[in-house]
Amino acid sequence: MSSATTLKTAITPTREQNYPEWYQQVIKAADLAEVSPVKGCMTIKPWGYAIWENMQRIMDDEIKATGHKNLYFPLMIPLNYLQKEAEHIEGFAKECAVVTHHRLAKNDEGKLVPAGELEEPYILRPTSETIIGEAFSRWIQSYRDLPLLTNQWANIVRWELRTRLFLRTTEFLWQEGHTAHATAEEAMQESRMMLDVYARFAEEILAMPVIKGEKTESERFPGAVNTYTIEAMMQDKKALQSGTSHFLGQHFSRSFNIKYLSAEGREEFAWTTSWGTTTRLIGALVMTHSDDNGLVLPPRIAPAHVVILPVIHKEEDRANILEYCQQLAAQLRKLHFHERKLAVEIDTRDLPGGEKGWSWYKKGVPVRVEIGNKECSANTVFMGRRDHEYKNRVSISQTEFLQKIVGELDDIQNNLLQRAKEFKNKNTVSINNKDDFYEFFKGDGGFARIHWNGDQAIEAKIKSDLSVTSRCIPFDDQTGAGKCIFTGEESKQEVIFAKAY
Amino acid sequence: MSSATTLKTAITPTREQNYPEWYQQVIKAADLAEVSPVKGCMTIKPWGYAIWENMQRIMDDEIKATGHKNLYFPLMIPLNYLQKEAEHIEGFAKECAVVTHHRLAKNDEGKLVPAGELEEPYILRPTSETIIGEAFSRWIQSYRDLPLLTNQWANIVRWELRTRLFLRTTEFLWQEGHTAHATAEEAMQESRMMLDVYARFAEEILAMPVIKGEKTESERFPGAVNTYTIEAMMQDKKALQSGTSHFLGQHFSRSFNIKYLSAEGREEFAWTTSWGTTTRLIGALVMTHSDDNGLVLPPRIAPAHVVILPVIHKEEDRANILEYCQQLAAQLRKLHFHERKLAVEIDTRDLPGGEKGWSWYKKGVPVRVEIGNKECSANTVFMGRRDHEYKNRVSISQTEFLQKIVGELDDIQNNLLQRAKEFKNKNTVSINNKDDFYEFFKGDGGFARIHWNGDQAIEAKIKSDLSVTSRCIPFDDQTGAGKCIFTGEESKQEVIFAKAY
Repeated sequence: MSSATTLKTAITPTREQNYPEWYQQVIKAADLAEVSPVKGCMTIKPWGYAIWENMQRIMDDEIKATGHKNLYFPLMIPLNYLQKEAEHIEGFAKECAVVTHHRLAKNDEGKLVPAGELEEPYILRPTSETIIGEAFSRWIQSYRDLPLLTNQWANIVRWELRTRLFLRTTEFLWQEGHTAHATAEEAMQESRMMLDVYARFAEEILAMPVIKGEKTESERFPGAVNTYTIEAMMQDKKALQSGTSHFLGQHFSRSFNIKYLSAEGREEFAWTTSWGTTTRLIGALVMTHSDDNGLVLPPRIAPAHVVILPVIHKEEDRANILEYCQQLAAQLRKLHFHERKLAVEIDTRDLPGGEKGWSWYKKGVPVRVEIGNKECSANTVFMGRRDHEYKNRVSISQTEFLQKIVGELDDIQNNLLQRAKEFKNKNTVSINNKDDFYEFFKGDGGFARIHWNGDQAIEAKIKSDLSVTSRCIPFDDQTGAGKCIFTGEESKQEVIFAKAY
Repeated sequence: MSSATTLKTAITPTREQNYPEWYQQVIKAADLAEVSPVKGCMTIKPWGYAIWENMQRIMDDEIKATGHKNLYFPLMIPLNYLQKEAEHIEGFAKECAVVTHHRLAKNDEGKLVPAGELEEPYILRPTSETIIGEAFSRWIQSYRDLPLLTNQWANIVRWELRTRLFLRTTEFLWQEGHTAHATAEEAMQESRMMLDVYARFAEEILAMPVIKGEKTESERFPGAVNTYTIEAMMQDKKALQSGTSHFLGQHFSRSFNIKYLSAEGREEFAWTTSWGTTTRLIGALVMTHSDDNGLVLPPRIAPAHVVILPVIHKEEDRANILEYCQQLAAQLRKLHFHERKLAVEIDTRDLPGGEKGWSWYKKGVPVRVEIGNKECSANTVFMGRRDHEYKNRVSISQTEFLQKIVGELDDIQNNLLQRAKEFKNKNTVSINNKDDFYEFFKGDGGFARIHWNGDQAIEAKIKSDLSVTSRCIPFDDQTGAGKCIFTGEESKQEVIFAKAY
């Protein structure tokens, strides 16, 4: 492999040159997804979908371990359901896909057109609080039916005008949890607990550090009393909201009449929550770890931990090399990394070794192993890690490789997390006055922790001046009360502002 | 528990009294699903969804083991895509849900109405051959890109006027495989192989014997050259089509221009297949095994293998009994049944023991274990099997129970399969003349194996006279050529006729 190849980057443009375009090109190079001919929608390709399957499996285990049961509600929601909660419909009216007909028929010109107009239109679910609220009102009768802890994995449709793969698409995939409780305290605890589940998932599985906090009023979910969020920092220093959990108070239980008879025999409205994470997490993953050579995957979420690349120069060596690769794969598959059997791919395509190696480097596989004649004879492997430079490969004995591979994967996982943590910490600053705040965001930006009096007019001006929004009131605030940097007035707590996806 | 309870059945009406209504009541008693307020759609409740999750997990493993990769295509399909394959649109036009608008706005009366009319309407996927065909035409360039083996898990919408939970609903869940190949032979092999996967799944996992065969022309998938099917017999002797696999020839590759450059440098149209199984399988499962006391679940698909029922008469015994149950559960969870850890539920609800026992009997859990004071003192369990009568319970030592539980589950699985096989065989008859054929279906009916000349007019008359349709040309035909029982003309092969869901 010529050193020239290792000097130029696989992705054009680089992050430095054009971050948004770099993002699209990383997705293309790793073959994660593509823009579909359906406006605003994406097709998730096998490598991207395998990442989502890993996310689903791990998140689903957590959701079940915390006592929730999966179920499935209809995709189509009657229009009048959405209208029952006023703020909710206000928030979603502009992005609703509407089903108005239930068949096609030929018109006079022989062209197929919508026919069978529905008496009442259906909305494709932009979220399911309303249809689930209706069911909860029938399922819940007594305090014995509480808490009711449910979750569904589903597709969601929100009509978006400006879309970007994974980050914002008209259709996306998600899980949405919906629960009902006898008391406000219990519901609040539930919504905070699920935020913790999300934060742990982001940090431990995706190697993506996040800040936990509460949304300000302007950024709340339509219909929520409190919205909690985890915010991650991308490599362009913008924030990405990576999961939200809502304490809905009694808003939806009053709109949908979700009542229960208490142990004391009183009729009470239940307290509800909802919480969700989506395929957007794949976008977050891409932008947190990838580099100018393509995707970088933390081992705990990678579809393959190890790829084995047979390098065959002479046809007569083929059988021998492939057998060595198969035996190595069989050994690897007996090992476990965090309760998952090692996932191993063997790439038998007839491509030059370098091209093969690069293709998997771009796809982000944590460990590559090249096997040629030399390795077969010496019983070694030629190994490279995705968090190291491409050319930085080492030859080690197969025995040693099998002994240390699980440790290497752990090391890669930790390395990526540390790198991301340092980046986030370096670019998170406390700011004490307005000028510095404006300076910060006219420059490179990042997360600015400030005191602010909570006035929405100021928030709106910041947004219009700088395209910067309040991300959250962080739970880890150490400063307590302070002075608003814009007005000098009292401020009860710190708020984090940033540019955001 | 009084013997009176064991004499009356839990489900009213019984199968004998009213089979369709019995079916609905079994679903209700087991709390699998309910009719939703969205016309024709169902809400799948946790116990039903857990069955689907098991089906998904096992089927997904098979789909991947046979070399397919999962991906995800958009829900909404442009109207003009569906029109590209003439038979295809003909088949689905009458059941298409049509999205015509992308937002809501207030009209003059302040009422929210559809707004933002789309230039071209979208259809909610009734199946995805068309949108996947468009992608395949871009993804496939050379013979090196073939075979292309894909699958997706998705929701499907087909507007149905007469619906029944699981069996026929406007929205349902399924997997749809889509593949492209260089030769007709290879595509044909693929579609037959997946039919074998479906048949094995039905028999080994669902304990549901099926007949494999090919559909006659009138029953073919719109756009297919050949449709293969597995047909199961329900307890009312009607057939239920439980999975289909289609050899699509070059129909879709010609409509969507799926071409490849062969090794010889010629441009050729690819050969495609598609195949699917749906939540309908849950309906098949219910109707194959359940009895007049509710659902009966084969252990390999049951969400719980064993349910432990603490029976507490005095408050002071509670801690002791619950601890015994917890320890028993922990022991059970260390065991494996067909590579899955034993799934164990403990029902701690404050209900009378009999009521608790019946509720799980109705839910179909393979093994129930009651634990009271007596069991704790004697270190025994009081065990009952779902394939035995409710009252037929035995007391055995805990040690023996732990030793034999996996064998018991295997025994239940085999027992259910044998019972279903015997029923199917007993009610499948070869018929040699028209009178006997009419007699058969005016009586109890079943599967009739007959020779028929293939004339669609005869098929139509049988359907109108008897509500009986051709189910398939069975692969296991031993008779070879024969005489049509309606006309005396030559017949190339046997065909199975039956009433069907």
